Amino acid sequence: MKLSNLAIDTIILNALNEDMPYGDISTDSLFSKIEQSKGKLIAKQDGVLAGLTVFQRVFLLIDDTITFKLYFSDGDFVKNSDVILTISGATASILKGERVALNLLQRMCGIATKTNKLVRAINNENIRLVDTRKTTPNLRILEKYAVTMGGGYNHRFSLSDAVMLKDNHIKAVGSIKKAVKIVREKISHTMTIEVEAENLDQVKEAIESKADIIMLDNMDIETMKKAIVLINKKALIEISGNIDIDSVSKKALPGVDIISSGAITHSIEAMDISLKF
Amino acid sequence: MKLSNLAIDTIILNALNEDMPYGDISTDSLFSKIEQSKGKLIAKQDGVLAGLTVFQRVFLLIDDTITFKLYFSDGDFVKNSDVILTISGATASILKGERVALNLLQRMCGIATKTNKLVRAINNENIRLVDTRKTTPNLRILEKYAVTMGGGYNHRFSLSDAVMLKDNHIKAVGSIKKAVKIVREKISHTMTIEVEAENLDQVKEAIESKADIIMLDNMDIETMKKAIVLINKKALIEISGNIDIDSVSKKALPGVDIISSGAITHSIEAMDISLKF
Amino acid sequence: MKLSNLAIDTIILNALNEDMPYGDISTDSLFSKIEQSKGKLIAKQDGVLAGLTVFQRVFLLIDDTITFKLYFSDGDFVKNSDVILTISGATASILKGERVALNLLQRMCGIATKTNKLVRAINNENIRLVDTRKTTPNLRILEKYAVTMGGGYNHRFSLSDAVMLKDNHIKAVGSIKKAVKIVREKISHTMTIEVEAENLDQVKEAIESKADIIMLDNMDIETMKKAIVLINKKALIEISGNIDIDSVSKKALPGVDIISSGAITHSIEAMDISLKF
Amino acid sequence: MKLSNLAIDTIILNALNEDMPYGDISTDSLFSKIEQSKGKLIAKQDGVLAGLTVFQRVFLLIDDTITFKLYFSDGDFVKNSDVILTISGATASILKGERVALNLLQRMCGIATKTNKLVRAINNENIRLVDTRKTTPNLRILEKYAVTMGGGYNHRFSLSDAVMLKDNHIKAVGSIKKAVKIVREKISHTMTIEVEAENLDQVKEAIESKADIIMLDNMDIETMKKAIVLINKKALIEISGNIDIDSVSKKALPGVDIISSGAITHSIEAMDISLKF
Amino acid sequence: MKLSNLAIDTIILNALNEDMPYGDISTDSLFSKIEQSKGKLIAKQDGVLAGLTVFQRVFLLIDDTITFKLYFSDGDFVKNSDVILTISGATASILKGERVALNLLQRMCGIATKTNKLVRAINNENIRLVDTRKTTPNLRILEKYAVTMGGGYNHRFSLSDAVMLKDNHIKAVGSIKKAVKIVREKISHTMTIEVEAENLDQVKEAIESKADIIMLDNMDIETMKKAIVLINKKALIEISGNIDIDSVSKKALPGVDIISSGAITHSIEAMDISLKF
Amino acid sequence: MKLSNLAIDTIILNALNEDMPYGDISTDSLFSKIEQSKGKLIAKQDGVLAGLTVFQRVFLLIDDTITFKLYFSDGDFVKNSDVILTISGATASILKGERVALNLLQRMCGIATKTNKLVRAINNENIRLVDTRKTTPNLRILEKYAVTMGGGYNHRFSLSDAVMLKDNHIKAVGSIKKAVKIVREKISHTMTIEVEAENLDQVKEAIESKADIIMLDNMDIETMKKAIVLINKKALIEISGNIDIDSVSKKALPGVDIISSGAITHSIEAMDISLKF
Repeated sequence: MKLSNLAIDTIILNALNEDMPYGDISTDSLFSKIEQSKGKLIAKQDGVLAGLTVFQRVFLLIDDTITFKLYFSDGDFVKNSDVILTISGATASILKGERVALNLLQRMCGIATKTNKLVRAINNENIRLVDTRKTTPNLRILEKYAVTMGGGYNHRFSLSDAVMLKDNHIKAVGSIKKAVKIVREKISHTMTIEVEAENLDQVKEAIESKADIIMLDNMDIETMKKAIVLINKKALIEISGNIDIDSVSKKALPGVDIISSGAITHSIEAMDISLKF
Repeated sequence: MKLSNLAIDTIILNALNEDMPYGDISTDSLFSKIEQSKGKLIAKQDGVLAGLTVFQRVFLLIDDTITFKLYFSDGDFVKNSDVILTISGATASILKGERVALNLLQRMCGIATKTNKLVRAINNENIRLVDTRKTTPNLRILEKYAVTMGGGYNHRFSLSDAVMLKDNHIKAVGSIKKAVKIVREKISHTMTIEVEAENLDQVKEAIESKADIIMLDNMDIETMKKAIVLINKKALIEISGNIDIDSVSKKALPGVDIISSGAITHSIEAMDISLKF
Repeated sequence: MKLSNLAIDTIILNALNEDMPYGDISTDSLFSKIEQSKGKLIAKQDGVLAGLTVFQRVFLLIDDTITFKLYFSDGDFVKNSDVILTISGATASILKGERVALNLLQRMCGIATKTNKLVRAINNENIRLVDTRKTTPNLRILEKYAVTMGGGYNHRFSLSDAVMLKDNHIKAVGSIKKAVKIVREKISHTMTIEVEAENLDQVKEAIESKADIIMLDNMDIETMKKAIVLINKKALIEISGNIDIDSVSKKALPGVDIISSGAITHSIEAMDISLKF
Repeated sequence: MKLSNLAIDTIILNALNEDMPYGDISTDSLFSKIEQSKGKLIAKQDGVLAGLTVFQRVFLLIDDTITFKLYFSDGDFVKNSDVILTISGATASILKGERVALNLLQRMCGIATKTNKLVRAINNENIRLVDTRKTTPNLRILEKYAVTMGGGYNHRFSLSDAVMLKDNHIKAVGSIKKAVKIVREKISHTMTIEVEAENLDQVKEAIESKADIIMLDNMDIETMKKAIVLINKKALIEISGNIDIDSVSKKALPGVDIISSGAITHSIEAMDISLKF
Repeated sequence: MKLSNLAIDTIILNALNEDMPYGDISTDSLFSKIEQSKGKLIAKQDGVLAGLTVFQRVFLLIDDTITFKLYFSDGDFVKNSDVILTISGATASILKGERVALNLLQRMCGIATKTNKLVRAINNENIRLVDTRKTTPNLRILEKYAVTMGGGYNHRFSLSDAVMLKDNHIKAVGSIKKAVKIVREKISHTMTIEVEAENLDQVKEAIESKADIIMLDNMDIETMKKAIVLINKKALIEISGNIDIDSVSKKALPGVDIISSGAITHSIEAMDISLKF
Repeated sequence: MKLSNLAIDTIILNALNEDMPYGDISTDSLFSKIEQSKGKLIAKQDGVLAGLTVFQRVFLLIDDTITFKLYFSDGDFVKNSDVILTISGATASILKGERVALNLLQRMCGIATKTNKLVRAINNENIRLVDTRKTTPNLRILEKYAVTMGGGYNHRFSLSDAVMLKDNHIKAVGSIKKAVKIVREKISHTMTIEVEAENLDQVKEAIESKADIIMLDNMDIETMKKAIVLINKKALIEISGNIDIDSVSKKALPGVDIISSGAITHSIEAMDISLKF
């Protein structure tokens, strides 16, 4: 996944408008277009970078004469005190964009950093850490991108691109088999079907229904092991539910293909990054 | 601050479009408009509620025949296992709105809950905990509302409604006094000026410049105490920098008016809430 | 796939604005809100219906007091002279919406009707007729829906939901195998990969690369038969290129899974339908 | 009529967003911004060009470093195998824009080509072939432009710029005379009034009402001839209804000023055009 | 011309957002949804009403439970102290919409009132007072409607619906005749051509070019009289330039069809109207 | 306050679309992109300039090759016949932008000019003339900027950035004191509270409630003088109500801080400015 201006410009323009419906009264009172400044973007903690293009684009949409010198790229690991980039140009333009640019960057780096910690805890090339749809509304494309910069992978982007049959669907239809059969008949041949299973009976039913992916939802380790044996490569296996840095290595069992985490997007700490003149 | 449909509908419609650019292929394959379901919204942890109107509005924008029965209101404290509300209506409509509604609600409750913990740690009616502009881009109005539901207060909404002169402004202008003088002459008589001070010399200069509010930024406790004596009610005093649950009670010194925290909006854990059919 | 107001309202509102940037000067000069009329929507040719919800929604967005009585549903086959529905309400509102409503409905019915002819020519339940991305810009969701009403199925919705490696991709990368390997490593585990093959060598390479779907592009019948033998159920087989009513039955060979046609959306005749007071 | 970026950019940006809500997963997986390609746009059938600016603009909105070399212009007649233009630049940018650019261009060329066939069948410089409001919703400006490139002319753009009193208006008001009188009194002095007449009585009433243009709707040849004699230059004469390549030359009677066709926009075959690397 | 919600809702929603990007902090602090109020809309000067639908719609878009009782209609003449309507409903909703509703209504009534004064000064049923394109950007449809409520008529709505060849066009092309000939050949047969003439030579050339409308621009009375004789009903005659209440009756010469005034939209006094609880 | 492209581009693009939904049929018929022209922007009356950036931006959004030579700046006083700037570039682009550019500029200069007259009538450096929220809907940012170019100052931008308790608020709450107390407790510490007082009792209550600003609304001179004595610097004093060029100097009493006028934005004469080729 890549971020294009096509995708991010609307997000940024709305954010700038949210932050200055009537301009920046502090900056507008103090500076004209003449004063020039130079700033350093400095990491105040260790972490993984994501969103440098977004950061730069905020300023460029305000003033296309702003220039940058980059010392790192998205996906790089930086240490506390590292200078990430320098920014040069009109003082007023830098001050106006600073907060929106940092709000976006710090959030994206926070996601990449948290993702990266989980990926390293899993420590298994055959198991992907993936995100979920539990992203911040209207920032999904940025957050899914940040996950990949941290070494994670993307689950489906939206309700339109893959099928996930969850407890509420299955309860309302009656059975996994019935649900998969109806859905398979209607969806595009390019689409895959994932089924959520909460116990071994459901796992068996999911296998019989020929689901492409089976999610073992909130199972204990022993049940998971049995499910993996049952599935036996007939479907991809996704582990889900309360994935955290302590428990993830135990859940990264042989045979597991995917571990998904909502927390890498919905419960993160913004990375501490500061712009200093 | 109140949330009106005028303010939230665009956010919600964009979020629904982000989550289903081509519809919900799982739900659309399984259900017509006929099947009805009833669901319970259940707290899976203790916390403070914020965003119940937003949660409901997501479903109503999909299908205005959905109905709700509420057992709690925004600002209420709920305990793990409490049923927050019940939702009834077309199965398809409930399934389509579920994720967006939860993404918004869990985030807002997470903010209210974190805010509330800090407010209780401060435990002083004369000191306000306030938010910052470090909000999630394009969700500021929801997040600032959530802060108030947690017992916090709002700082300025945007760059357009109050002046804050930070280190970068002052460095670029030359001195606090000069900056305040220029700004005061230009801004509306309804606007106030806050000045960031990093040491006692800057505090003195801020007092002399007749700033309305002086922010003591990242000062140690002893310096803060001296600053409070210097200011002596001539300006409101705001404490800022690395406010956390452990340190905040020490920083809540007599004479302080406001403590501001970026973390209550930029680094929160989504509250665990679940919708069960 | 279903059409929701969420998805169609923007299309309709833009279309109404395109058709009356300054109102309907004919109707506005002649009628107030008082005059009432009743109209019949009449098929002027045989065909398959698609878009009745869209048709009605055009009028309801102008005037929510307009009422309809429906005699047919989407997917139904109507004959010349059949009354599809009756519309009642303010004369002015009916006249203002008439052209936009018909433009949308006639196009959608034209697609459903053309699709249905091809489906009946294929006459094989094991072979799906599917659409492509060759839809009218900004009306894709309506056109993909119309295809399903005609008995066809949807291919991927957009560039974001499934991989298709076409001649231009493969030429630029160097080989099918290399391209599939790179892509598989990066995309979501929920996504599938389709490869376009123009000859048997490419078919073999596509099989070895473990493509999920192989498109036999513009092959002659004999080559197609050999390809089907080679693939031998290891991938879904899609036939593409110059699919028309005469040739399609010959191309519907045993072993083929999907036949795709761009013409069912890009080169259709609007179905002749008329609204008479 | 001319197409400006002002008018087409929103159409194109919406179409690109429709085609890649989460990017182009095939292309984004394979290419960075470095790989360069060159492509040829080749006519696969004879036809009239319309929309080359639109075609180019799609790519330029994705990547403003893409360059083109044009061998033909809008309005030119091309033959099967002609190279229309070459495109050079980043492989990724070309691949991302290809489908949207072709969808727009092929449709516009299809309209220009069909229009041109009818114009040549009419073969009379004194009779204009004109379009109608039966255009694809939200693409009217592109389609009306394409008609002019095929040698046709535009009828009114929308309900806001000229009056057309059709059967439904007249039926609801009571009489042609009454309708024209009411409308003339209210509309701008810059506006003209066209009246639809289905028989000679209505033609006479339209003449007496001083309509500026009289449309002979679905009349047989003999009735048309009598109508032309009756009108005798007192109004412009427009012929309408089931205009096709076979019948149009018979309907192009002396005295006729305008022949209008909905089919040149609502029922066209996309011109076959291909982009080859 | 009529105003529909379709046309005015976007204007109103944007205006409400402009006036409360973060809500109404005064009202939101004081009132919940419970408090009810009743207000009277009172004319504080004599004038002509225009925009009562717009006024009401502002409140209904905030809160659709607000109700109104109307004592007058658009186009009515009210006197100082007349109660125009009463409004009832939630205090908060009334307070939030008050300023935007009044800003729109007062401006529209100001236009209707000024227009009406000129119409009465002309005092000739055969001469129309018309507006121009000198309207407030993005409010044209409201202002053109207000002109008709004052007894005036509309000139063209925009650059797209009629031709006006002004001094700058003619200077750039070379001659009136050449310009009219080129334009007539290209535009729709439904469109008319108006030519601006500054002296009698230009009037003669305009007549010979068969312009539909000739504008006598800033001519003295004697020259106008000669121009009227020259034109002799071969074109409509429009008088333009510095039309004011004092001079207009002199310029309303026999033979003149239209008098156009930019000032009735660009230089008006908002009518004094007040909303009292 | 400054105007950025971020803030004005949407206004301008909407205005251009309003003025040419289907292009400029006069100009498009006559000119291609080749013809070049040069025009002079000439003041036809004395006045104060505001909006030159907006004027230029209109043309640049149509055609970024247009160039300007400026002889004056915003805030400058020009005399009748002064050449304000020259514009050079494609004839078609200049003609298309002319009316929108002039509509915006003439309105903004009209505001600056009227403001300036009042400022000079007040003739007291200690008293600010300020605007109100009685601005043209959706043009507030342009109009508030124009006020500052005329030597005036801005009052609050919107309902979101400062509190004003008016007669309708106070009537609904019960008393000034109660209203101020409730509001002060809820709003941001950066916000100020202004109270409208219609008589001396209300002035006293406003003082006791510690309002930051007291507005003396429509008081006679003698009452104002008493109010000023009562207030005695405990709050800023704003004078409001029927401020005009004749009365303003009398109301500019010693001790008054602010005089506010709605008429400088809602009832202005567009400055006469003309673009001549």
